[in-house]
Amino acid sequence: MTAATGIWPPAATPFREDLSIDMERYVAFCHELLRDGAHGLAVLGTTSETNSLDLEERKSLLEKLVNSGINPAQLIPGTGAASFGDAVKLTKHAAELGVKGSLLLPPFYYKGVTDEGLFEFVSEVIRRVNSKRLRLYLYNFPQQTGLVWSPELIATLRGAFPETIVGIKDSSGDEEYLNALLEKFPGFAIFPSSESLMIDALGKGAAGCISATANTHVKAIRALFDGWKSENVTAMNKRASAIRLLIASYPLIAAVKATLADQHKHRGWHRLRPPLTPLDDKQTAELREKLAELEAA
Amino acid sequence: MTAATGIWPPAATPFREDLSIDMERYVAFCHELLRDGAHGLAVLGTTSETNSLDLEERKSLLEKLVNSGINPAQLIPGTGAASFGDAVKLTKHAAELGVKGSLLLPPFYYKGVTDEGLFEFVSEVIRRVNSKRLRLYLYNFPQQTGLVWSPELIATLRGAFPETIVGIKDSSGDEEYLNALLEKFPGFAIFPSSESLMIDALGKGAAGCISATANTHVKAIRALFDGWKSENVTAMNKRASAIRLLIASYPLIAAVKATLADQHKHRGWHRLRPPLTPLDDKQTAELREKLAELEAA
Repeated sequence: MTAATGIWPPAATPFREDLSIDMERYVAFCHELLRDGAHGLAVLGTTSETNSLDLEERKSLLEKLVNSGINPAQLIPGTGAASFGDAVKLTKHAAELGVKGSLLLPPFYYKGVTDEGLFEFVSEVIRRVNSKRLRLYLYNFPQQTGLVWSPELIATLRGAFPETIVGIKDSSGDEEYLNALLEKFPGFAIFPSSESLMIDALGKGAAGCISATANTHVKAIRALFDGWKSENVTAMNKRASAIRLLIASYPLIAAVKATLADQHKHRGWHRLRPPLTPLDDKQTAELREKLAELEAA
Repeated sequence: MTAATGIWPPAATPFREDLSIDMERYVAFCHELLRDGAHGLAVLGTTSETNSLDLEERKSLLEKLVNSGINPAQLIPGTGAASFGDAVKLTKHAAELGVKGSLLLPPFYYKGVTDEGLFEFVSEVIRRVNSKRLRLYLYNFPQQTGLVWSPELIATLRGAFPETIVGIKDSSGDEEYLNALLEKFPGFAIFPSSESLMIDALGKGAAGCISATANTHVKAIRALFDGWKSENVTAMNKRASAIRLLIASYPLIAAVKATLADQHKHRGWHRLRPPLTPLDDKQTAELREKLAELEAA
């Protein structure tokens, strides 16, 4: 099984007024992202508000996607949890559904833990899931977790579990870190979290990108991926990066959902589960206006 | 129902070699803490490695304590989770067992969230647990969660839910914050997380303390609480604080468990679940020696 490449949006989650998941709308949206050019879906990520869903919801959502006819080989769900027990349950469940792989956050409650402790955590997950089919993509997001998958630890993990640890999603936005990974680990499936870093990273061997704004602009990001060696890549990249920069100038998940609400003309997209909060009306109107300008340009 | 006062140790969790919970030893230890002077038990806290237990283990452990004959009115379990769904399940389960209250962490995945978002999170938990018996103690531990229950937010929560939001455990170690709470909220059950802050805080209206080192030194800490107005409080406080300072000069949970392993002459106490790691042999020997010196003094 080769590792994932291309554009894998972390599909956002629409909520009903009572904050329950609007499952029908969610499933339809995932199909739409694939139709619009996503190579696969990095579902149940940070943008999906996964850690604001309970464990049963996380499993149910993945089952619904597979039952709706999405090829599980096009799914890389987030299956991390603070405890290895819950991470094992989620990861095993996903592996049994036949997913391409799982995105694994480090255990994100305790801070200041050692690489040795993180290694043991991953080891326990792999040992307990106990499946030859298991493929893990590390999920690096120090701004949320307070923890980093250090290059040294990644090297140790790859050495210990060469078949299993196949890639990483790096949401740090730290280009120095990203470039260090790209240099040290050729053949590792490295996904920056923003299309604005993708073109440079593809030239250095990155696999693609897993970007919040692939929820709202998947066609353009796919075109950017397909055309990264083409003549007009600079112009495409400039345009995509301007849109990304605008959306990310607001609280990112709220801004993605406000834009989805506009695109789909449905209020449900505008809702977030606490502790996240939606953009206010003024922000929403301003974002809408500026985005329309960029898209018309 | 009056709010809790006194010494409420966050009982540590012993593990077997396969890292499963040594339930028998755990239950016996909790009874021992109560016999040795604990007013109650703030079980399933940070020192208990709660966020390294899976959700089923957390519920099971609480049931085992109640079934073993511990009065649920002597239990304040931690029932926080990153999602309100899981927090509701745990909090409801605990309330149905008749516990004194629950310690509620803020949702600890997302960072940089607003007070409004945290308010909504707590509101959802209270609304969905839907029990007049529910009593919540906020759990403030910014070093792990990256979030703070601000005094403004606490005031808003108390205003909205005066019967339910009855206290706070403050593990920040930030005396300025602690003193601000003590000054602003007379009658609120405020627990610092260290006996070394307790005497000063009791004079300002604190309720007691919930301290990691109450696992290893509950008798002394209880005596300190009982004698805080007595003549020899300064000497007692100095001694207790020296012991606390020593143990906290190592990674705290590992050092508490190393000391428990010595006190109980059982290796199981020395084990931690990843991502936490035990003290190494050198640290363990050094801590043992220095602690013996302080205790002999």
